[in-house]
Amino acid sequence: MSVPDKPLNENQAEIAPEFDDEFCAKLDDLFVWRRDVRHFRSQPVSQQLIDELLDAASLAPSVGNSQPWRFVSVEDKRRRAKIREIFTACNREALDDYHGEKAKLYASLKLDGLKQAPVHLAVFVDTSTQSGSGLGRKTMPETLHYSTVLAVHTLWLAARARGIGVGWVSIIDPEEVRDVLNVSKDWELIGYLCVGYPKSDHSIPELIRQGWQDRDTEARILHRR
Amino acid sequence: MSVPDKPLNENQAEIAPEFDDEFCAKLDDLFVWRRDVRHFRSQPVSQQLIDELLDAASLAPSVGNSQPWRFVSVEDKRRRAKIREIFTACNREALDDYHGEKAKLYASLKLDGLKQAPVHLAVFVDTSTQSGSGLGRKTMPETLHYSTVLAVHTLWLAARARGIGVGWVSIIDPEEVRDVLNVSKDWELIGYLCVGYPKSDHSIPELIRQGWQDRDTEARILHRR
Repeated sequence: MSVPDKPLNENQAEIAPEFDDEFCAKLDDLFVWRRDVRHFRSQPVSQQLIDELLDAASLAPSVGNSQPWRFVSVEDKRRRAKIREIFTACNREALDDYHGEKAKLYASLKLDGLKQAPVHLAVFVDTSTQSGSGLGRKTMPETLHYSTVLAVHTLWLAARARGIGVGWVSIIDPEEVRDVLNVSKDWELIGYLCVGYPKSDHSIPELIRQGWQDRDTEARILHRR
Repeated sequence: MSVPDKPLNENQAEIAPEFDDEFCAKLDDLFVWRRDVRHFRSQPVSQQLIDELLDAASLAPSVGNSQPWRFVSVEDKRRRAKIREIFTACNREALDDYHGEKAKLYASLKLDGLKQAPVHLAVFVDTSTQSGSGLGRKTMPETLHYSTVLAVHTLWLAARARGIGVGWVSIIDPEEVRDVLNVSKDWELIGYLCVGYPKSDHSIPELIRQGWQDRDTEARILHRR
């Protein structure tokens, strides 16, 4: 790995910790072993660990430093049951879009861990936030949503490093989820996360292992202009 | 940090590398020291390093394993000049939204590193991709875009670990950028990234240091339902 000269220390630079080759290799391992988990063990996750994950998520980049992410821990049993109902209905409708072998394969996939995961986190973007004063959002307002996605990913990586799995459920009606959780109409659902200790570790995504979708070579091409 | 029992090794589990407390602490450091960089040194970034960043990005989670991210290295001088013109026009328009002290402060901010950054990466989502066969996108089609955001963030973290800074420019007209780069109409711009060695390292976002937007306490609250 090529190493640049020492920083110029302009603009009141601080001295950053060193991230060496060993760390970079381990970080790459983290990317390899981060999975979208749908098979959870029942063992609870401590509140201290959840707090660590939220602390990490709070460090995510955000447009104009707007920090628009809002995390809701879904704990009420009836609310969880309703969320599962929403998923089941949406998943049944989704199945109707497939036919033949693909429909059989779809029906065989486990696409959520809602029943087993000890922790449910619904992540919203607060579209009404004044933080950031709109900086960076005029031409691309969707960056407010993207900022929340960045927070989810930060949480996800921090979780995997601690041995905790995250599964992002998107087969769900976002407005129904918002209603069930009784949050502000200004909050839009970004993702519904199942969180807990995974039953097993994998370096290969489940959708590849199950034969749904392999690596896409086009996704790795660098186009030049 | 609490550690779970050994994995049950169900579903043909592999043995994952261990991510210990030291790695978790260093990963948190990475989140702390990752910045949206606008001050770059002219030193080039090797193609090998860019390839490493793309390899990392390819490991990002994506809805239905659709891998919809498309990376365009913008190298042509005239194209880069046009991108800078687009930014300048959009930034001038954005300034008109502010008044008084806030306008003065906005005008004083450096919101891009387009002129100095040795590498420009335009990141698009390919909305026409068939990969993933639509899985997970029926109720939340925006997850295709979110998947590309996850790839950007993966690249960003891999870059920072290697001492390379990334600055996400969103003050830009996404359709004009697409036209300048002459890519498919099915590709939508997610972000325009400036990439290079930063002039200095910081643990505090520039928009906080410059007095634009402080930490938002609300962003750290865990709501319960």
